Amino acid sequence: MMTREFLLIRRPEGIPGPDDFKLNTRTLGPLAEQLVRVRTLLWGVDPGLRGRLSDETSYAVPLELGSAVTGFVVGEVIESRDPRLAAGDVVTGAWGWREIADVSPAAISPAPERGGLPLESLLGLLGIPGITAYFGMLDVGQVKSGERVLVTSAAGGVGSIACQIGKIKGAQVTGLAGGADKCAWLRDSLGLDAVIDYRAEADLDAALARVFPDGIDVVFENIGNRMVDTLLKHMRNHGRIVICGQTADYNLPPEQRHGIRNTRNIIGRRLRLEGLVAMDYASRYEEARRDIRAWAAAKKLITKEEIEVGFERLPGAFASLFEGSKLGRKLVAAA
Amino acid sequence: MMTREFLLIRRPEGIPGPDDFKLNTRTLGPLAEQLVRVRTLLWGVDPGLRGRLSDETSYAVPLELGSAVTGFVVGEVIESRDPRLAAGDVVTGAWGWREIADVSPAAISPAPERGGLPLESLLGLLGIPGITAYFGMLDVGQVKSGERVLVTSAAGGVGSIACQIGKIKGAQVTGLAGGADKCAWLRDSLGLDAVIDYRAEADLDAALARVFPDGIDVVFENIGNRMVDTLLKHMRNHGRIVICGQTADYNLPPEQRHGIRNTRNIIGRRLRLEGLVAMDYASRYEEARRDIRAWAAAKKLITKEEIEVGFERLPGAFASLFEGSKLGRKLVAAA
Repeated sequence: MMTREFLLIRRPEGIPGPDDFKLNTRTLGPLAEQLVRVRTLLWGVDPGLRGRLSDETSYAVPLELGSAVTGFVVGEVIESRDPRLAAGDVVTGAWGWREIADVSPAAISPAPERGGLPLESLLGLLGIPGITAYFGMLDVGQVKSGERVLVTSAAGGVGSIACQIGKIKGAQVTGLAGGADKCAWLRDSLGLDAVIDYRAEADLDAALARVFPDGIDVVFENIGNRMVDTLLKHMRNHGRIVICGQTADYNLPPEQRHGIRNTRNIIGRRLRLEGLVAMDYASRYEEARRDIRAWAAAKKLITKEEIEVGFERLPGAFASLFEGSKLGRKLVAAA
Repeated sequence: MMTREFLLIRRPEGIPGPDDFKLNTRTLGPLAEQLVRVRTLLWGVDPGLRGRLSDETSYAVPLELGSAVTGFVVGEVIESRDPRLAAGDVVTGAWGWREIADVSPAAISPAPERGGLPLESLLGLLGIPGITAYFGMLDVGQVKSGERVLVTSAAGGVGSIACQIGKIKGAQVTGLAGGADKCAWLRDSLGLDAVIDYRAEADLDAALARVFPDGIDVVFENIGNRMVDTLLKHMRNHGRIVICGQTADYNLPPEQRHGIRNTRNIIGRRLRLEGLVAMDYASRYEEARRDIRAWAAAKKLITKEEIEVGFERLPGAFASLFEGSKLGRKLVAAA
């Protein structure tokens, strides 16, 4: 049986390009004992992967050169040597940019109950993006009714869910995004209280002061150091900055990243900055999914996906994340 | 009745100097209705005051030019037009660098029970330093038995109390300080598990890696951005950095401060950075003081003060804080 996979052959400098990856075709032998053979149906395309392509230590060890690119996926079992899984089962995992993969059952999970949501929800509302938004807003951010909340990368896969969870909890939610179409979607489709189009604002400080004359209680932050440094000037006492992503910094070596200087406000306004990784909440995934399914059924949570078709489009889809031009969460589906 | 006071007449650049303050003598008229006249017995000399001398916004509004310098003090009531206070009462407040002051009863507090501790404990163990160390370690830092704790400015007024509270709670406590005498005191008198003399270490990263081969759970941080940036590389998963002071940054304008870049670890290691201001815990002061008195009585908490005598020595005592050379908390007593 033939399969294709993308290997990381070079550590990207800046935005990952086609020469950083190699499309490799190889033959799979018979399935080894205790493994499960899966065919990938959907690949999530997430900015967080960028960190693993560098050789900096992060919560995940850097991906080794020559190995297949990792990433969250949905697949179907096509052969199983584990009694708990059978051909036809839909499963999720992180086996990454491979069309067919032999994986350990410990590294895959049966798909959770979808409650009427489409397959792609397994990589969105019911997957890591939804889990991240849920625990980021509620557990780390401790968002309360009436609080003033800012979500950056608000039109993104995680940010757009975070915005809506804020609204569900009764917060005043402002979304920050780049481009008129994203901002219109946030305002008109998600019903946010305000939007900031950072491309249309010459002075972000002035925009923040206009939208948050009394300051910000909770930030759900996806951009990086420069944004955090700006936001530190606009926080209210006891404000929380949930450090969820650093999209603008992933492509920069540490010495080129913006350095955060407005830290006097951390004491002065008793601020909390805290990072989160969704996988830490593994024992509570079902708690999040129960709420998310109910909110989605009540049309309080919607998503927008852009699905490209064809395995070979993965590197391009990934690079496009850093151009920041598209509206909707990016996925690639098997042809 | 004559009194003397120090006025802020210029915003200091760098370390505050004698030309930034003016010793002013003036005559007090009869005590106004509802006020209390106090004679200052002891002035606390704290690096945190430095922030208020600049015109940057902080948790306290900047001190106006021409007004008396503020700061925590202990005094004795010499005349009262408030029925709750009488001549001879020992009180604490923040009326600052004034020998005699007419203050509102709302701005002063009767001295708490000292439990055998000396008068200066009202500005140390039982005052803001003790309260800050207590809630910083236990409430913000959530220090637990067996955890690996680093306290910076460990020989300082707040840091030395924080170190000992860490030991009382069963943590492995390392103190970071500058100079052999401070480090000897931390090791021999406070019984810390390890000390790092940052002046004797050519490479702080190497020293931290040596003392914390498995990383740091909790940092009680008093120095500022450069230190935080270094420490971010040495934290364990779910580590907490209690941002308590920024002594190295107080004297720098924001654009000259070090910028924090190692923020990838905030997500990667799920770190929490959080600032605190002791006054937020006003409703819980007695909870801290009850523990502190008991620990002091059991000789588990000791302090070291350096008391200069004479009101006129305040500006010099304050400036000396930023030279970092002295061991022991600085106080000035009335002659």
